[in-house]
Amino acid sequence: MPASAPSAPATRSERKHAAIIAAAAEVFLDMGYDRASMDEIAARSSVSKQTVYKHFSSKDLLFVAVVTEMMDEAGAAVHRAPPNLRDRAELEAFLLDYGIRIQTVALTPGLMQLRRLVISEVQRFPELARELYARGAGRAIGTMGALFETLREDKLLAFDDAAETAAQLNWLLMGEPVNRVMMLGNDAIPTTAEIRRHTKAAIATFLAAFLHPEQC
Amino acid sequence: MPASAPSAPATRSERKHAAIIAAAAEVFLDMGYDRASMDEIAARSSVSKQTVYKHFSSKDLLFVAVVTEMMDEAGAAVHRAPPNLRDRAELEAFLLDYGIRIQTVALTPGLMQLRRLVISEVQRFPELARELYARGAGRAIGTMGALFETLREDKLLAFDDAAETAAQLNWLLMGEPVNRVMMLGNDAIPTTAEIRRHTKAAIATFLAAFLHPEQC
Repeated sequence: MPASAPSAPATRSERKHAAIIAAAAEVFLDMGYDRASMDEIAARSSVSKQTVYKHFSSKDLLFVAVVTEMMDEAGAAVHRAPPNLRDRAELEAFLLDYGIRIQTVALTPGLMQLRRLVISEVQRFPELARELYARGAGRAIGTMGALFETLREDKLLAFDDAAETAAQLNWLLMGEPVNRVMMLGNDAIPTTAEIRRHTKAAIATFLAAFLHPEQC
Repeated sequence: MPASAPSAPATRSERKHAAIIAAAAEVFLDMGYDRASMDEIAARSSVSKQTVYKHFSSKDLLFVAVVTEMMDEAGAAVHRAPPNLRDRAELEAFLLDYGIRIQTVALTPGLMQLRRLVISEVQRFPELARELYARGAGRAIGTMGALFETLREDKLLAFDDAAETAAQLNWLLMGEPVNRVMMLGNDAIPTTAEIRRHTKAAIATFLAAFLHPEQC
């Protein structure tokens, strides 16, 4: 279901659309792009192949819909309205909460398999990988960079370049777990306790570097 | 040529072995695992298919040899004997040099394509991805973690967990550029000037968090 419409799809056509995307996600992630068939997707979404083609005129377009849908749903779960932070304690609590949330949402078997699939198809579908970048790390870095500009005005953070600073936070949080899961498989997805410990260390480093001198 | 034998392979058999691996690297990176053939690899290395099989009894084993060879060669170019660092200025110069070196070595079209290929085959060849992890980020984090233990004794750095601290340095340096190249393609490989600027920012953050108080 699209991030912009969190209530149940209203019409029969919208429900079918959502069912096809959900089934397609399963099939693409299980079988990869080449082995996924529109027949299998139709069967798993309990509609005719004709109906699948009415909604998505090609396997290619359906693949794009799966990637954008999964990334937007994840993004909606990670990103919230900009918080109103008044002091160091509130900033720290927000960053810990954000750090745990982004890892909990992103480090799932489905999203990690999507990432592997998109990376393996980057030469055939370069636009798709660009979408995943924009809706994943790109969105996280952009959103946090905008917040950091406000926090600099409020003398909570001090830094030169908001985008670079937001990218550093992103990779302090995501670099090690994402790389481990990419390489070592989904068994390497961290536990809640591991995410919590890793996040505390990442936020401590971030604040040591960027907390505004007036807050120290 | 193996990292442990930087001089030219001595025997005819060793030269053939090296030529087959070099040709196989080209073929695997160009065509992917499935489409790569032992015939093509034999042709490009100017030996008979029989000779290829004498050296590598299967395509699978040849793929493993290519990955370990490329990673060990890269590792040998990144990692040097532990430096003898006496003060903050030497530490900072070493970290800047290391940061620029690891990015310059790793962010090449060949190694980035190897990474994509291994990620796309992680379900079929999980041991191969584990090798890439161990010889890539795992080696970098292990080597730096060991150095950091010494630097803590020498009161140049202060931290709780050497492995976590080394992982943070690794991802401050590698997270953003590797993710961009994975997703946006080899056109996103940073220039020397971009690597230098990015490294300065990463090392500044690292030292703000971990420089020993006696050095501040």
